Amino acid sequence: MNVEKNQAAQMAVKKIVNNSVVGLGSGSTASIFIELLAKRVKAEHMNVVCVATSIKSAELGSKLGLDVVDIDDVESIDVTVDGADEVDANLNGIKGGGAALLFEKIVASKSKYNIWIVDSSKFHNKLGKFKLPIEVIKFGSQRIFDSLQEMGLNPTYRLNDDYTRLLTDSHNYIIDVDINKFKNLNSLSRKIEGMVGVVEHGLFLNVCDELLIGGLNKDIRRSKLSKGLVLN
Amino acid sequence: MNVEKNQAAQMAVKKIVNNSVVGLGSGSTASIFIELLAKRVKAEHMNVVCVATSIKSAELGSKLGLDVVDIDDVESIDVTVDGADEVDANLNGIKGGGAALLFEKIVASKSKYNIWIVDSSKFHNKLGKFKLPIEVIKFGSQRIFDSLQEMGLNPTYRLNDDYTRLLTDSHNYIIDVDINKFKNLNSLSRKIEGMVGVVEHGLFLNVCDELLIGGLNKDIRRSKLSKGLVLN
Repeated sequence: MNVEKNQAAQMAVKKIVNNSVVGLGSGSTASIFIELLAKRVKAEHMNVVCVATSIKSAELGSKLGLDVVDIDDVESIDVTVDGADEVDANLNGIKGGGAALLFEKIVASKSKYNIWIVDSSKFHNKLGKFKLPIEVIKFGSQRIFDSLQEMGLNPTYRLNDDYTRLLTDSHNYIIDVDINKFKNLNSLSRKIEGMVGVVEHGLFLNVCDELLIGGLNKDIRRSKLSKGLVLN
Repeated sequence: MNVEKNQAAQMAVKKIVNNSVVGLGSGSTASIFIELLAKRVKAEHMNVVCVATSIKSAELGSKLGLDVVDIDDVESIDVTVDGADEVDANLNGIKGGGAALLFEKIVASKSKYNIWIVDSSKFHNKLGKFKLPIEVIKFGSQRIFDSLQEMGLNPTYRLNDDYTRLLTDSHNYIIDVDINKFKNLNSLSRKIEGMVGVVEHGLFLNVCDELLIGGLNKDIRRSKLSKGLVLN
């Protein structure tokens, strides 16, 4: 898979233009992109300002010499390159395996263009093999857990290695749910968002503008989807 | 106003029944209720378990001898008694002047019955004299601020006395907005909730089941509103 991740990251780094603000994703594939971007910026003396989706990515970028600034220091982000845990043929996806989903969603929503880079194992016709993470306020989280159980979503709290509950960068819990049975993801998304105490969830619908798949060597743009692109 | 607050709290404390789980609100009027409840529980040897909407209310309740437990330790809350910063004739209201709105909303949503206690100055035919507080994730909050500005909501960050930004119990910022011009509060509520990075806002629509107004000595129930109750 590392070869494919590298391939996808290579495709993405070529798309970055000079004098732009770039959003840095989180996770293993995004990390490869950050390394390649740092190399290219250095080699070509490019003027690129970066905003990160996690403390880890910010640290990696800075260490490699990229100019990483706070999200509130830029007016908007030209392009964000991020990974995804699972993505379907409509360029909808699930993110948040690394628990950075909240910051990833905030950066994506401030980005004019979102590119996702994945290896071929992440690409499925229907979402649901990967668990959907939901970030919830600690206070009263059991109520949300119980509601998700009643909805048939089979919830589990995300745990640390020592079996304590994992805390996100914003001090919240993650509850993972199984959305395999659900067909209408827009309705599910709205239902979860409407729950008091839910901060955000990992369903990214209509966010990704361009998907680069390593291995398959595919470059799929949302703007072309409506024209009846057949993927498989 | 203290006489009226006391009057409303007195009306509420009489409604608490033995062997019940009671939600304790936050703020000056709710604090009076907590004091009266503690007295009654002691005097009548009542069996009452309490859940609090803020660290402050939990501490006050415990200090006065009430049995305050974690929200996740009860299956549901029978009745919550809370104040409001402003409430209209449809029993919709704005809460969060004390920045406890997130926990207040979580407790309210776990409550079978919500009673609000206010003095007469809080009761208006139309909401909007009071600023609406919106709790937002720190990361990227300027983007939300800018969007609220574009919507004509005149946003300001809630500050501490030393002009640093106030942090809630969940480590978030509060942005106060002016909703005076907006007529369709349901639509405004959904719009704000849909913004990535918004945790919760202080509009409580269709939450309050019964409103007790000190001074006016009024007891208004939601269940009777549909029957065409005229208030003024």
